[in-house]
Amino acid sequence: MLSVLLVEPKYGGNVGSVARAMKNFGLSDLVLVDPPVLGSDARRLAAGATDVLANARVTGRSALDGFDLLVGTSGVRASGDRNHLRTPSYTPRELKGKLGGAEGRVGLVFGREDRGLEREELDRLDLFVSIPTSEEYPVMNLSHAVAVLLYMLSDLKTGTVQMASREAMDVLYREVEGLVRSSGHPEHKKERSARMLRKVLGRARPTAREAHTLIGLLKDLGDGS
Amino acid sequence: MLSVLLVEPKYGGNVGSVARAMKNFGLSDLVLVDPPVLGSDARRLAAGATDVLANARVTGRSALDGFDLLVGTSGVRASGDRNHLRTPSYTPRELKGKLGGAEGRVGLVFGREDRGLEREELDRLDLFVSIPTSEEYPVMNLSHAVAVLLYMLSDLKTGTVQMASREAMDVLYREVEGLVRSSGHPEHKKERSARMLRKVLGRARPTAREAHTLIGLLKDLGDGS
Repeated sequence: MLSVLLVEPKYGGNVGSVARAMKNFGLSDLVLVDPPVLGSDARRLAAGATDVLANARVTGRSALDGFDLLVGTSGVRASGDRNHLRTPSYTPRELKGKLGGAEGRVGLVFGREDRGLEREELDRLDLFVSIPTSEEYPVMNLSHAVAVLLYMLSDLKTGTVQMASREAMDVLYREVEGLVRSSGHPEHKKERSARMLRKVLGRARPTAREAHTLIGLLKDLGDGS
Repeated sequence: MLSVLLVEPKYGGNVGSVARAMKNFGLSDLVLVDPPVLGSDARRLAAGATDVLANARVTGRSALDGFDLLVGTSGVRASGDRNHLRTPSYTPRELKGKLGGAEGRVGLVFGREDRGLEREELDRLDLFVSIPTSEEYPVMNLSHAVAVLLYMLSDLKTGTVQMASREAMDVLYREVEGLVRSSGHPEHKKERSARMLRKVLGRARPTAREAHTLIGLLKDLGDGS
């Protein structure tokens, strides 16, 4: 159920270390978005997890399409509520609570070692998690962040509740945008408000059933008084 | 209160990575028992924690004397009760419970990357902790084990983001209900759909700022086409 996506990782050694941490916690689906060439460093640090490394799926940004829920991680914490693109950030423990009991394709997305995730990437994500660290030096090594997060999610119980598919969420988001666009909301606020509503809905992680009902409701709201 | 002791670490890079993880979680006292010569690898992987590395105390085995409580860690889990030297092993969470409320000098002792801790060293230790990992590949990288353990023992709270107040959520829920009531949604579905939307919004636990925007948006949706 859980996959790890690394977006443009810079160092092969980090990729190898991530593969190792994944295997330590029973995961195997590693997705690499535009990675560097993986050489001896990557294999050495993968240690007993060279199979995870060898089976990694190397793709472009379309990798993000294949998941029902995308969880963004960042070494840089959102400060205050101005950083609305990735607030609120859940703690690993809170994330575990959110994911517990659901069934679906969940991607944990880790940004570049130096620059994290870009705006268009952040817009695609449903939830954010950040690891509470020292104010003095909050920037964790990429593979350390993966290890801590996978440890916290390692005894996650998946359940029988089907989460809304990526496709259903895309339809829901389109309905939200159409409804906001045709509303009396001030023009200059429409885009930002629609994005915020998307973000709130994504964070709520609706079930397949809920998404279905909400899509119907939104269509009817558009037809209403 | 917490120190990290590395017993005969083999790779300077691991020592640097451990220094980084320590600083990420607010620790600074690193004790190295017969370490290798620390070169550029160690400094590079310490990243912003070269101060922790530079201030590391390099000693012989007498290092173990300076602590009120020594906690042994091992990548290799005790199997059954035959391995009586380090059973029971606590999980990191259990260890946290054990250490909670105590005052004293606690040393977290990590063994060699390949051979772990020797019998005489094990005899000196008070408690054992092991990180639950996959049966298939349980051996964690040294610095990953440090990162996971320090994360579990850290008590840092995140969160400067103001959550929506109960009052704001009540207003939001009233707007949702009003909007659904006046919409073209089939009468017999209205109550259930409104309740579902409330539930989804409530679960998303919006920030104060988000709730404010959503309330404005919902009012405008009611006024729209």
